[in-house]
Amino acid sequence: MPTITDVEITDVRFPTSRTADGSDAMNADADYSAVYVVLRTDGTDSAGEPLAGHGLTFTIGRGTDVVALAARHQADRLVGRDVDDVVGDMGATYRDLTADSQLRWLGPEKGVVHLSLAAVLNAAWDLAGRRAGKPVWRLLADMTPEQLVDVADLRYLSDALTRDEALEILRGAEPGKAERIAHLEHRGYPAYTTSAGWLGYDDEKLRRLTREAVDAGYRHVKLKVGARLEDDVRRLGIAREEIGPDLTLMIDANQVWDVPEAIEWVRALQQFDPLWIEEPTSPDDVLGHAAVREAVAPVRVATGEHCHNRVMFKQLFQAGAIDYCQLDTGRLASLNEIVAVLLLAAKFGVPVCPHAGGVGLCEMVQHVSVLDYVAVSGSLDGRITEFVDHLHEHFTDPCLVKDAGEGVSYVVPTAPGYSTQMRPESVARFRFPEGAEWRQDG
Amino acid sequence: MPTITDVEITDVRFPTSRTADGSDAMNADADYSAVYVVLRTDGTDSAGEPLAGHGLTFTIGRGTDVVALAARHQADRLVGRDVDDVVGDMGATYRDLTADSQLRWLGPEKGVVHLSLAAVLNAAWDLAGRRAGKPVWRLLADMTPEQLVDVADLRYLSDALTRDEALEILRGAEPGKAERIAHLEHRGYPAYTTSAGWLGYDDEKLRRLTREAVDAGYRHVKLKVGARLEDDVRRLGIAREEIGPDLTLMIDANQVWDVPEAIEWVRALQQFDPLWIEEPTSPDDVLGHAAVREAVAPVRVATGEHCHNRVMFKQLFQAGAIDYCQLDTGRLASLNEIVAVLLLAAKFGVPVCPHAGGVGLCEMVQHVSVLDYVAVSGSLDGRITEFVDHLHEHFTDPCLVKDAGEGVSYVVPTAPGYSTQMRPESVARFRFPEGAEWRQDG
Repeated sequence: MPTITDVEITDVRFPTSRTADGSDAMNADADYSAVYVVLRTDGTDSAGEPLAGHGLTFTIGRGTDVVALAARHQADRLVGRDVDDVVGDMGATYRDLTADSQLRWLGPEKGVVHLSLAAVLNAAWDLAGRRAGKPVWRLLADMTPEQLVDVADLRYLSDALTRDEALEILRGAEPGKAERIAHLEHRGYPAYTTSAGWLGYDDEKLRRLTREAVDAGYRHVKLKVGARLEDDVRRLGIAREEIGPDLTLMIDANQVWDVPEAIEWVRALQQFDPLWIEEPTSPDDVLGHAAVREAVAPVRVATGEHCHNRVMFKQLFQAGAIDYCQLDTGRLASLNEIVAVLLLAAKFGVPVCPHAGGVGLCEMVQHVSVLDYVAVSGSLDGRITEFVDHLHEHFTDPCLVKDAGEGVSYVVPTAPGYSTQMRPESVARFRFPEGAEWRQDG
Repeated sequence: MPTITDVEITDVRFPTSRTADGSDAMNADADYSAVYVVLRTDGTDSAGEPLAGHGLTFTIGRGTDVVALAARHQADRLVGRDVDDVVGDMGATYRDLTADSQLRWLGPEKGVVHLSLAAVLNAAWDLAGRRAGKPVWRLLADMTPEQLVDVADLRYLSDALTRDEALEILRGAEPGKAERIAHLEHRGYPAYTTSAGWLGYDDEKLRRLTREAVDAGYRHVKLKVGARLEDDVRRLGIAREEIGPDLTLMIDANQVWDVPEAIEWVRALQQFDPLWIEEPTSPDDVLGHAAVREAVAPVRVATGEHCHNRVMFKQLFQAGAIDYCQLDTGRLASLNEIVAVLLLAAKFGVPVCPHAGGVGLCEMVQHVSVLDYVAVSGSLDGRITEFVDHLHEHFTDPCLVKDAGEGVSYVVPTAPGYSTQMRPESVARFRFPEGAEWRQDG
């Protein structure tokens, strides 16, 4: 019986601010980073390799050390425990990791202690998948409805979703699972790209990258907006010119507006027929999003990458505040909280289009989207998952996209785990501040 | 011209869990703690003492080191700066400290990075008061409406409160300021006590402390509830017996219930005529609080100690979710955000009854409540500020309460600053893990 022998926690930072990759109206100089957690064991996996679990949360530079310190407090509780105890009841593992009321005070269930919890739990889920020899989406999809509900954190949700309703949703998705898996294995899970539209790119680069995205088979392209209206008008004009009238454009303001400003600005951009406005205002503003949504229709409203927990998503659904749920795999407390949000979204009929990009988020969201289609919502209607073509080279099992004739799509992951293992040489080079990349920089 | 020469950040913890002080349904073993920030300067104050600013945020044990590390990132920006530049435009200082988008990502505006920001800004406000030779409440009350609005962070609030509306509220409170100050200097600011009702106390201790509170002149007593209904019924029976029918009882569930459970439980306790139920459910659940409020009337709903920023308070007001606003001086980003919430509360007609207790919160809330009466709401109707008689001995200028015939009240603070300086011998003894108190414990 293998045991968790050690936890390694590393502050890994990539100097993306040097090229304006990831720049938007709120974040001009992001250095894409991760708190990377490895749960070491004394066991081996089915291939005879050392068994370990790998997880991360995504950050953007300074303060990654703060999240790493919080993760240390949380992950140390796992050291010395039997692997099968930990991964055999992930609901109990979640409750154990969240039971520390002294740490809870620092959130609760939000901010640094929730980001770090996501990293630790993501590592535990990767370990669970590897121990079972299954990709994480399949580990979950193979569970009975009762097992899957027991994994989910339904606390504070019962006014919107009872346990019985959750079971009913999952039982309703049982028929046709195998067919849906086969369908995804053939066509992949629909993806869109943000790579073309970072705010720090000049017009020529924007035009070139948009054209390349269309040539690559993308049918949806997202642009950052919100710095200066006249720039947005010009940039959206370029993008619409390149993609033509039939492909889909989305825009993302990264929280820069007050509610009245959001309404005015989006109305001014409506001429370019954007599908959605993403993060029009503070991510905490449920009622604000509802007001924006009502005012800017037919442009739709999307948010979620900074939505800090299931209680906030519950309210976004209750208030009819969003058309698209962009949950984040590094910000919610891993699959325990994500499954709860998938269930809520299914109940309220809101499509889940996870936030990705950053470091490792694309690797994780493919599991979430596949799980949603196979075992929860059973639908691809209106679903499209973000893809950003950055930093995948640092993962041992990077996500893949393909175009099987219906637009670019994620290839369904098959390797055991959560696709979150980073290459050792990348971790060594980019660890902060000791890695070679940062030593030469300093 | 004095300069900020150094920032000291200390993790200070008091072993309160040994006596169940501070125990409630969510937090059974709190060790009341603080991240304590001192801004050192090379100047002297009006008394010829070294000029420094002292601030803190309140935590409950493990993880205080995480908040301290975040505070270090934020506070270092102040080192080397001219004191009068920093304190002469506290709106600009606030914006400077919140402008780091890499750190913002870790909230945004919530959790660890917001708690640490509160500690740093509280220290800056203490420095501002000492530099001016005024208690902080008076420094703010002496400002013109325009100056006070410029201090407040109104971002994301304009759909509920415009700058012009804020100015109108403050101008409306200009007449009568001197009379209101004189009134408070005479009678003090009304206080209630939570010291009697911690959940870990047995019935006999509860009865004795409740009787002592009544004898001491308290007219409002608050009890923790939410662990077991039959215990709550018995404990509230004891408390109501001791205080009689005329004094006021409040109850506090510290977030343990789902919405339907909260409604059922509070209805079962309605027989004891509680004024309010505090924190009935998740602090993030604006719509949940609104549902509870509608269902449990005439019992009123109070929340705020875990309400993480002004955007959440805005929604609590917009949704009609609360009867009492219990803002927290260690969780909101100091007076810059607090003034914004006071203005919102005044606009919506919700009385502000700040959360206190913990470490140093009573010292700070007295300034907030006095400021609210003198310069913002101009009203004492329904206002009552929490007082807990713990740990004041560790402050150089502890808050005082008195009973001038109208119930126990806070004495208006007169010393320059924010009353947040801790005694050096206390900091030395309780610093974690090096202090003598923790070395002997380990």
